Amino acid sequence: MIRAGIIGATGYAGMELVRILQNHPEAELVYLGSRSGDGGPYTDTYGNLNKILDLPLEGEDLSLLPGRIDVLFTATPQGYCASVITEELLTSMKVIDLSADFRIKDPKRYETWYGITHATPEFLPEAVYGLCERERGSIRGARLVANPGCYPTCSILAIAPLLEGGLIDPDTLIIDAKSGVTGAGRSAKVANLYCEVHDSIRAYGVSTHRHTPEIEDQLGKAAGRDIVLNFTPHLTPMSRGILVTAYAKAAPGVTKEAVTDAYRKAYENETFVRVLPYGMPPETRLVKGSNYADVSAVYDERTGRVIMMGAIDNLVKGAAGQAVQNMNLMFGLPEETGLTMIPMGV
Amino acid sequence: MIRAGIIGATGYAGMELVRILQNHPEAELVYLGSRSGDGGPYTDTYGNLNKILDLPLEGEDLSLLPGRIDVLFTATPQGYCASVITEELLTSMKVIDLSADFRIKDPKRYETWYGITHATPEFLPEAVYGLCERERGSIRGARLVANPGCYPTCSILAIAPLLEGGLIDPDTLIIDAKSGVTGAGRSAKVANLYCEVHDSIRAYGVSTHRHTPEIEDQLGKAAGRDIVLNFTPHLTPMSRGILVTAYAKAAPGVTKEAVTDAYRKAYENETFVRVLPYGMPPETRLVKGSNYADVSAVYDERTGRVIMMGAIDNLVKGAAGQAVQNMNLMFGLPEETGLTMIPMGV
Amino acid sequence: MIRAGIIGATGYAGMELVRILQNHPEAELVYLGSRSGDGGPYTDTYGNLNKILDLPLEGEDLSLLPGRIDVLFTATPQGYCASVITEELLTSMKVIDLSADFRIKDPKRYETWYGITHATPEFLPEAVYGLCERERGSIRGARLVANPGCYPTCSILAIAPLLEGGLIDPDTLIIDAKSGVTGAGRSAKVANLYCEVHDSIRAYGVSTHRHTPEIEDQLGKAAGRDIVLNFTPHLTPMSRGILVTAYAKAAPGVTKEAVTDAYRKAYENETFVRVLPYGMPPETRLVKGSNYADVSAVYDERTGRVIMMGAIDNLVKGAAGQAVQNMNLMFGLPEETGLTMIPMGV
Amino acid sequence: MIRAGIIGATGYAGMELVRILQNHPEAELVYLGSRSGDGGPYTDTYGNLNKILDLPLEGEDLSLLPGRIDVLFTATPQGYCASVITEELLTSMKVIDLSADFRIKDPKRYETWYGITHATPEFLPEAVYGLCERERGSIRGARLVANPGCYPTCSILAIAPLLEGGLIDPDTLIIDAKSGVTGAGRSAKVANLYCEVHDSIRAYGVSTHRHTPEIEDQLGKAAGRDIVLNFTPHLTPMSRGILVTAYAKAAPGVTKEAVTDAYRKAYENETFVRVLPYGMPPETRLVKGSNYADVSAVYDERTGRVIMMGAIDNLVKGAAGQAVQNMNLMFGLPEETGLTMIPMGV
Repeated sequence: MIRAGIIGATGYAGMELVRILQNHPEAELVYLGSRSGDGGPYTDTYGNLNKILDLPLEGEDLSLLPGRIDVLFTATPQGYCASVITEELLTSMKVIDLSADFRIKDPKRYETWYGITHATPEFLPEAVYGLCERERGSIRGARLVANPGCYPTCSILAIAPLLEGGLIDPDTLIIDAKSGVTGAGRSAKVANLYCEVHDSIRAYGVSTHRHTPEIEDQLGKAAGRDIVLNFTPHLTPMSRGILVTAYAKAAPGVTKEAVTDAYRKAYENETFVRVLPYGMPPETRLVKGSNYADVSAVYDERTGRVIMMGAIDNLVKGAAGQAVQNMNLMFGLPEETGLTMIPMGV
Repeated sequence: MIRAGIIGATGYAGMELVRILQNHPEAELVYLGSRSGDGGPYTDTYGNLNKILDLPLEGEDLSLLPGRIDVLFTATPQGYCASVITEELLTSMKVIDLSADFRIKDPKRYETWYGITHATPEFLPEAVYGLCERERGSIRGARLVANPGCYPTCSILAIAPLLEGGLIDPDTLIIDAKSGVTGAGRSAKVANLYCEVHDSIRAYGVSTHRHTPEIEDQLGKAAGRDIVLNFTPHLTPMSRGILVTAYAKAAPGVTKEAVTDAYRKAYENETFVRVLPYGMPPETRLVKGSNYADVSAVYDERTGRVIMMGAIDNLVKGAAGQAVQNMNLMFGLPEETGLTMIPMGV
Repeated sequence: MIRAGIIGATGYAGMELVRILQNHPEAELVYLGSRSGDGGPYTDTYGNLNKILDLPLEGEDLSLLPGRIDVLFTATPQGYCASVITEELLTSMKVIDLSADFRIKDPKRYETWYGITHATPEFLPEAVYGLCERERGSIRGARLVANPGCYPTCSILAIAPLLEGGLIDPDTLIIDAKSGVTGAGRSAKVANLYCEVHDSIRAYGVSTHRHTPEIEDQLGKAAGRDIVLNFTPHLTPMSRGILVTAYAKAAPGVTKEAVTDAYRKAYENETFVRVLPYGMPPETRLVKGSNYADVSAVYDERTGRVIMMGAIDNLVKGAAGQAVQNMNLMFGLPEETGLTMIPMGV
Repeated sequence: MIRAGIIGATGYAGMELVRILQNHPEAELVYLGSRSGDGGPYTDTYGNLNKILDLPLEGEDLSLLPGRIDVLFTATPQGYCASVITEELLTSMKVIDLSADFRIKDPKRYETWYGITHATPEFLPEAVYGLCERERGSIRGARLVANPGCYPTCSILAIAPLLEGGLIDPDTLIIDAKSGVTGAGRSAKVANLYCEVHDSIRAYGVSTHRHTPEIEDQLGKAAGRDIVLNFTPHLTPMSRGILVTAYAKAAPGVTKEAVTDAYRKAYENETFVRVLPYGMPPETRLVKGSNYADVSAVYDERTGRVIMMGAIDNLVKGAAGQAVQNMNLMFGLPEETGLTMIPMGV
């Protein structure tokens, strides 16, 4: 059994990690930590785990973890993981970081977008970007995985195959994304109150959202050159789910078949990516509660553009589910282990 | 492997059965039927099962089922199951009926509340009321199980222990219940449109709801005598979930401890019923997506009444989950098999 | 023009007062105050009033108000109004208090339920309970009006006519109420976050909610004797709205007609109370955004109980709308002035 | 008093027309018609108008209307208005058509996108496109106004000033829009059921939505040349509201100030368009229930694109409110008459 620990267990992504790992046949939760942890039952925070999980919520003393756990998930605010990671830690356990600390290879670029000086840039080179469908090989051997952001996961899965296939013009990429409110975290802010969000939609972080460089880096990798794009997220009145609608100019000669073929080719052997029939828009409720990503595209001959669409559950494929998928890869397990949750549907 | 079939697979309870059975380690879905079934893929109706389930949606010809399946779930409108059940069918397979046809022992009482003449009252005596926590013994040997209604399941779990303990006066019982909209089914009616339900709450079926006699019968069994009670359901703007708030006069000498003890005693060995700390109100999101029922009560000394509360997911413990729990019992499996889904939380 | 001021203008009830008074033909908003007010534009807090209202958000210095305003609305936390009210203030302006400070005549009872020692019990005798449909006469001459709570308003309107008509047994009253989340206020608490409330329902304050004594006092007045009752509120996933479902034993000889007649008689000349056809359940969306209260009842012959139902918008008839209705009465205006908003419907 | 009639009064836009006209100081509702109308009370369909409006729901016999009404609002399915309009009708009353029949000047283009042969193209030339802020002059003298679509209204208000100012490249326009569910109408379809829409988001009509040519025509007018653009609507889990997020390449030399100035200049004398501070994203709840449109933009120097945003209530500024604004113009009333509803906020 893989002994697993989570720091930041009281956030929504932390809770989702607990839900998934608790049912994982090859893993055992042994440590749940949080800044506010004082040894009281974790179920005081998350009553949904009553009678299912019997672990205390501990503090964040990392020095006690070596020897106790085999893998550490850090579902913590930006900057935390980079500030605590050490060679010693990485020698004694695998680390899967759900924050952005190790997603961006260039520490200056990280600093520009996040406003934080990277505390341990020496670990950036070895950190592997954990988008399993694209980095499977490197993940298997990694000690430190940078678990992708929710928006990047959905965006990259929907866009990369068309970029790689040369079907769209990288200079014309625009990503309009919609997220459920769990994406905003569990901190007590007026802006996240029920009455401020319910029955309403709005954009936020227009032209400044921190997931932009991450998406650009990864799509740039797919395109084989630098990409600069627009990314606009929207706060949507739902708990879970990310929907990406992306636009780009079609390359000359593109056809509807070519678009669908690019997806099919990229994902035919993938368990967790579902290519919908041409033109069928993904819907977040059809992936909710699961590790699936649904993608599809429309080639609009009239305008010469391709519209690419993707849907995931931001807490699962966009966070905890993908983190466990990474763990499975890192420990040599079948990738789907413990991730067979079927989408809720309603 | 238990070969399972579902009639009424296009309703929400049918879909939830599919989700649960598809992940059940000892069962295999082999037949999905519906009045509208024409052999096309089931996933045309429920895209959440894309790439997970590859079964057609067939028609409802029961004559083809003997030998093909070991258990039939009927998630059909009232009257259907009673109209098709035969000795031959019951000889060749177990039947778990999710409709009300076999829940009420007295066919006249059934007719009074449902407005339907019972087509096969000869099977009523052998039908077992499938509230697993209370009828485990009889369910094990049954051929025909009447899977309880969603409101009755939640009401009985919250109230019966206090009735049996003599802690409340059966003549003063009032049940005020709140249900998510999946309880209203998937038929295209104006009253169930998003805009007619969203951001609003209302009662319905006041004094006439068909779950009333079912609740009265079962609580009467617990009390050892006939009970007449008020039951008022409310349509609540959420997809899943039932919350029951029930009121009754406390018997003389009742204490807070006695109330909690009655629950503890009733449910200490039960996996799926969670007794919350005294006074903590259950919350539907904390059971959503799972087979759990949360119960708790408050004894209000000031008024001399006990307030009993329960929460379930109406599609799981209130329908498909309990149906599978019944199947497990009927086939000698551990009761929790395939039902380990952890509540969503958010 | 009536010059109006509001303290506590940043809460949801304060905002609703602003919305209503801004469109009131005989009133003019001249002062908006809040603990956090620093002279910046009110629209920084409530962007819905952009380009409509051009007033700063000031601090709470009451000494500057005499001579500046004719009426003060205090939409403040419990205890505030009682702590600042003076003879001098009441000499220079009318005060309509939306908190509970002057709703309960007995300061000890107030202290018991609110845990606050009443700072100015000497003003309790003159304070008028501002449920306009029932206290119109006294309100007209009042200097200090205690604007009713949202739950009490809805409960009393639905229950009092039947109590007064002797149609129900006061000793058997049970009120099960459901509220939208604006009722929980605008403070940044985890429990009020979107993800903690959305798609879920739960009771709260079971047997301890502070509106209980207010309801008991007023219904006791209607019944002509003391009443002790159960009141259970539920947090419902919607922004606005209160639904009350109340239960009581019918008096001997009660008929369906008698029940409807009692409502008709009580409300036939009332603009803002709508008696629905017998048996039709009120629905919160049908009063949303308006000062209307919908009421109806069912007499269940089978159980011998009457189920009384009421629906209001908690921010309008349950707070700001009724406060303005009180202002209209206190200043000799037609009661409906400025309150003609038609329910949203959807 | 203007005597007003509505055909299609049972749809959501029809209901909103009723709400607004019922409170309009210079108009009187005298006719409410619908295909299903049989003379029963309108409030049987819309209980929110109980005790407020006392009109029957009549059938659709237009021959009875001349002499009875001064203005007819047709809130009917596509094709209806064009099929019934006559010179005689237009001689006896003004017609404001809320369908698309007279929005697109070229009947072939209409046929291409709507799949309907235009029955009365002879009236197309005189029909005025009723986007009040842009066509005020022509509307004043019109007999027949084509009330704009909800998406076009929001899109044009957000984009046109920048096009007219030459600040963006018309060939790069992409509009990503999000709509509440009232936009889907009130017909009983599975796709519009609460459980199919709630807690989820999806695109629809990708590259084929019928509002596309309308937006292109009007923005083409603003740009002074033909425009071909992408328009992607999304079904969002809320009742009311449209949010538009539009993207275009900035013209050389554009600055943040230029962007805001273009809006300010276009809308400084407009009551119903509010230019938000630079970079502040509009939010649908801040216009809900009102005739306001909020617009703002961000110039992203990094990508060289402008992101334009707009929010309206689709039933008000996107339908009924704008229709009444048109009526006000056509009858020489101040444009704001009867349209002073303040946005709900929550």
